[in-house]
Parts: sequence; C-alpha cells; structure tokens
Amino acid sequence: MRKVAIVGVGMSKFGEEWDRGFRDLIIDAGKKAIEDANLQGEKIDGLFAGTMAPGPLIGQEHAGALLADWMGLNPIASTRVEAACASGGVALRQGFMAIASGMHDCVVVGGVEKMTDVSGPDVVSALGGAGDQEWELFAGATFPGIYALMARRHMLEYGTTEEQMASVAVKNHFNAARNKYAQFQKEIDIKTVLNSKVVASPLKVFDCSPVTDGAACAVLMPLEKAQKICEQPVEIIASAQASDTLALHNRASLTEINATKVAAKKAFEMAKLSTKDINLAEVHDCFTIAEIMAIEDLGFFKKGKGAKATEDGLTSLKGEIPINTSGGLKGCGHPVGATGVKQAVEITWQLRGQAKERQIKDAQIGLTHNVGGSGATAVIHIMKKA
Amino acid sequence: MRKVAIVGVGMSKFGEEWDRGFRDLIIDAGKKAIEDANLQGEKIDGLFAGTMAPGPLIGQEHAGALLADWMGLNPIASTRVEAACASGGVALRQGFMAIASGMHDCVVVGGVEKMTDVSGPDVVSALGGAGDQEWELFAGATFPGIYALMARRHMLEYGTTEEQMASVAVKNHFNAARNKYAQFQKEIDIKTVLNSKVVASPLKVFDCSPVTDGAACAVLMPLEKAQKICEQPVEIIASAQASDTLALHNRASLTEINATKVAAKKAFEMAKLSTKDINLAEVHDCFTIAEIMAIEDLGFFKKGKGAKATEDGLTSLKGEIPINTSGGLKGCGHPVGATGVKQAVEITWQLRGQAKERQIKDAQIGLTHNVGGSGATAVIHIMKKA
Repeated sequence: MRKVAIVGVGMSKFGEEWDRGFRDLIIDAGKKAIEDANLQGEKIDGLFAGTMAPGPLIGQEHAGALLADWMGLNPIASTRVEAACASGGVALRQGFMAIASGMHDCVVVGGVEKMTDVSGPDVVSALGGAGDQEWELFAGATFPGIYALMARRHMLEYGTTEEQMASVAVKNHFNAARNKYAQFQKEIDIKTVLNSKVVASPLKVFDCSPVTDGAACAVLMPLEKAQKICEQPVEIIASAQASDTLALHNRASLTEINATKVAAKKAFEMAKLSTKDINLAEVHDCFTIAEIMAIEDLGFFKKGKGAKATEDGLTSLKGEIPINTSGGLKGCGHPVGATGVKQAVEITWQLRGQAKERQIKDAQIGLTHNVGGSGATAVIHIMKKA
Repeated sequence: MRKVAIVGVGMSKFGEEWDRGFRDLIIDAGKKAIEDANLQGEKIDGLFAGTMAPGPLIGQEHAGALLADWMGLNPIASTRVEAACASGGVALRQGFMAIASGMHDCVVVGGVEKMTDVSGPDVVSALGGAGDQEWELFAGATFPGIYALMARRHMLEYGTTEEQMASVAVKNHFNAARNKYAQFQKEIDIKTVLNSKVVASPLKVFDCSPVTDGAACAVLMPLEKAQKICEQPVEIIASAQASDTLALHNRASLTEINATKVAAKKAFEMAKLSTKDINLAEVHDCFTIAEIMAIEDLGFFKKGKGAKATEDGLTSLKGEIPINTSGGLKGCGHPVGATGVKQAVEITWQLRGQAKERQIKDAQIGLTHNVGGSGATAVIHIMKKA
C-alpha cells in the first residue's frame, strides 16, 4: 500500500449562500485546493465527491460526473460517494484507497451540499433519509428528536446537564468567530443557548448545527511524490470506517456511537498511536450532545466525563485536546456532504501552522471524525506533518 | 497492487416486484452471493453499494449503512457509491480498489434499485437526475428524448435503420428468454418493435429498457486467497472509468460516447489485451441505439458498422462476439443501480460455464460496460478465468 498525502486544500465560505448554486460552491473550493496544491505538471486523474442528498435538494444525481464536468476535469474518473452526513469523510477514504492502491496518482476529493434552494420542511425530509425511512421517518422521527433521545439518556446515566451541553456551543462559536470561512462569526454565551427556542427537548436551537451551503476540497497524491513538490505535505496515516444499525432503537446503547468506537480502534491500530498522541481533533458535533459522545467514544475522555471536560475548558483552543478548532458543524456550519472534507482542510491548516487566530501550538498530529445519520456510519482519519 | 478475484455472485429475479422492497431485494442477492462464495471462515470486512436514486424513489439515503445493517454485516465499513445508471459498475470498481490496496480482504459489492414504489412521472423525474438538471431536465428533456437525438444523428450519419435498432431488442429478448432472472421471458420479432408505441421518435417502447426492481451482488477477495478457497475464481484484470460532460449539447459528437472510448483504452492497456481477445461482453443497452454505439465505441466494430453487425447476427449467442447474453438492460431489465453488478454476475456465470441455455462456448475472457446518464460516466471491467 502506498503512503498518501494531502498536498492542497480549499473551501468555500460556509453559510446561506443565496447567490451561489451547487456548481459554484464546488468550483470555488476545488479551484482553491488545486491552486494551493501548486501542481507542476502533475495530472489530476481522479475525483471523489461526497454529497448526501442532491436528488431531493436540487433534483440532481450523478454529481461525480457533474463536478468533473464543471471543474473542467473531463474525462477523468469521477465518483460520487454517499454516507449521509459522513459523505465527505467517506469520499476522503475513497481518495485514500485510490492513491494507496496505485489506481490513481493525483486525486481531488470534494464535499458539497446546497441546502437552501428548498423549504425548511423539505430540508428536514431530505436529511431524514440519513435515518431509517421505514422505522423512523415514516413514524415521524426527525434528527433533532433522535439526538434528543440520546441527550436525555446521557443526562440520566451520567448527570450531564443542559449547561454542559451549552458549553460545547459556546466553545465552537468562539472558534468559529476566528475562522473567516465559518457560517457564524459571533461569540455566544451559555445564556444564549439556554434561552434559545426548544427544538426537541432538551436540545435548543443553539444546540443544533445549522442548515448550510458549502463545499470543501483536498488534493491527494502519493507521499513520496508529495515530498518532492510540496513544502508542507500532510500524511494520512490512518483511514478507518465502521457501521451500525440505521435505526436508533436497535442499538445496545443510546449514549455511545459504537461505529465511532470500532473505527477509532481500527484507526489507532493502523496509525500505531493512541489518543495521547493526538494534538487536536475535528469531531462530528451535529448537536452539542454529539460532540460530548464523540470525545468519549474516541477515547479522549472516559464515558460520562466528556460534558464536564468541555465545561472545564479541556477541549478549548488552549485546552489539553483542542476539539473543533474550525468551529465544528455547530459554529462553522454543516453543509452535509462537505463536512468530512472540511474537517481535513482544518487539520491540514493547523498542521501547517496556517490557522491564524485559532492556531494551536505545536500541532503535529490531528484526527477527523465524521458521523452519518445518528451513528450508522463513522469515518476516522489521522493525519500528521510529513 | 494486489490481484483481485470474484469468488461469489448472486442476483434477485428482475422485474416489477410488487411484494418486495429495497431491503428484500438486496438481501436476496447478497445471501445468494455469499452462499455462492462458500466462505470458510473468511470475514467480510467491507461493502460497497451502488444505487442511483433511493432518495427520490423510496425516501432513503445512507444506503451503504442500511445494507450492512439489513445484511447483518455491522460493524463493517459500508459505502454507497452513485454514478447514475453506472452506480453498480462504480461500486464494483471501489470494491476492486479496496482489495487491490490492501485496505480490505473480503468485500461484498452490491447494486440495487427499487423503482416501482412511485408513479411513472416520479420515476422519470428521478432518472432525470442522471442528466444535467439545469440545462436539460429543467428545459423538459427526458432520457428517451436525449437518446432519440443520438439515434437520429446515427441514422443520418451512418444510414442506421429502425429495423437494425429493432434487431438489438429482438436479440436481447431472445437471450432474456433463456435467463430465469430476466424481467422479460418472451421472444419478440422485428415487427413487435416497429409496431410498438413511439416514446421519442425514432425510439419506440421496445427500443427502451424497462423500469425494474432488482439487486445483484458479488464477493471479492485477493486472487491469491481466492485460488485457495474457490474452485472457479474469476480474476478482474482491468477496471477503468471515464467521464464526459453531463449535458449532451456540450459533446463533440452525438454518435459516440467518448467516456466509453477513453475507459476502453485504459482498460485494454491495463489488461494488456485488445478487443480480439474478448469472448463476450455485457454492454449498456438502456436503449437499442446505446448498444449499437457501445459495440462501436468499445472497438468491436468500426463506427457506423454496429447496426449492420447486429442485424447480421454477429452479436448473437453464436456470433463472433456475443453481446448481452443476459438479455442486457433491454431484456433482463434495468434496476438502475443493480445493472453494473448484474453484468459482472453474468460474465462470471459465463466464464464458469454456468449460463445454461445461453452458455457460449469456450468463454475465457469477458468485458462489462456500464454507462451513467447519456454518457457522462463509463465504467469498464475485464474479467478472465483465473
């Protein structure tokens, strides 16, 4: 298996981009990533695009070919991959395998979602496709409702409080306010969260990631080649993915995402590292409770201790393990298919020392954690300065 | 790169399966493929599922995780890939890369589509997502209309006749009548086609592949291991994919699919073979004109000579290059995401000598050709008896 490196990254401004469509967003991100890669005659020969629901959202499938077309990359092989909210992470993993196998020598990995072209209820319905249509959606379940069940159970079993969940949102808005690409540019406090409208008790508006338009891209090539043309290549030292039941009611536990635990074990084995070696992580905080479960399931904190750790600032920019320096899904925004790739963009910037106001010190090794649905898919990548 | 082999295949009966849903179909095919593989303790560690439009068709995205769940394969990595009508072929290609790279050791590749749960116009709209939403669908174009343009131009440039196109349908129904999994079990004659209702002139109902429910699966592993556990492994000696503009109006030619030509060139280079070495092929005959273009673009016949060759019987079961022995999309049916995998199932049966009434003599090397949309994606695999 060949070693794989990221040589270029880019993303569009995340937000409600009324004047830009699906194609504009990905071209913006793709152009930036390709420019950043500073290719010198190397030919891009593959494209993997993560996007969750362009069918219901914009009436368009076949997004792989569409993006190759609009990025001017015909006739290269271009494939859409989808794993709900983990579509971007899974696209990164396909790109990794394409380079590792020797099938491709220079691949663009993209993630994109255009969510604001349809009404709110239509977005809810399209996103519902991430869960179990027959056993959840059909019965009226929505994603805030499903995560609210997990939050309630976490509160019951571990004494997690609404204030502690709110501290996740406060931290992530703080980081987002230091990221020019983030949807939300304002800091908030605990009261903002606690006083915001209830969506699905105990989750309030500020516990939820927003509806976002956006795209992110990365350029991958074999490490050996990357070291010749790139000043600061970032090596992907682990790529792991796991699955679980689509419906929440079939799971053994409501307070953990087993797919995260399985994928984390595989990723750490592949990288020959442990949680202690990780300097920072981008984790899947589609809701505040999701970040708390993620940092527990990944092994950064013991089960039941994630909420307190966040409240105590251990996951802040200057904490022992900075989490979601980009602002996460909560602060930076969550254009579903783009999120997994955006996480890799942020880690790349941090490892290169290009994260400006939110730069953490001596970042050598970072981790990305991308979840699909309520945990039926988890994808983890570990990256280090090459 | 490790060598890759198919060790097990299976498919559901193709047709209008009113009493079976998306999940039933894939479980049926998956179970057959896994049983056929006769695994002896080898652990399936990856799943790639090709499905085009489960969002619009059944309200369900995240099909990779869903299938792992319903096939009892949690917590393995499971990913949906999509390239419109080439989704199955692209899934096979991801499975190939996963084994070739060493990331996985035993992978199930599945293709599935459940198309009869919604109305006819809704199917047309969902399938339209394979084309360019902004430049084709929005303007009212449908797939029969788009392929009709290609057919008209082919008739003008090369003198191709409606009778010759009809001969594709006659041949494929003949083959389908010898395949118990096929949607259509009756032979037809030229008059049946010519007298059938016009869909988009010059294409009539019998020039078009049908709306179908169905699934197909294959189990892949490294060739070295396959040779130890499997009596008749089939090696995948080439996997190639190419793209073109999504919209027809941007193409240099209306009478060829350039993505097919590019992918074919790559595939023959990878396999170190030429068209003469191929004993049979399953090609993408979503419309009769599509098969004629395919056998020309793949190099089996010169451009403009495919229609006459078909009329002369050169592509029949006893012809010099049997095409679509399964009945093709036209006769066997076209459950969009399943088609690319079904093609590999048929080639596997033929290379093993298990194709019964439609078995061709001395089949050593076969090719599959799967197209997305009107040609924006083409995927080609070449397989041989290991």
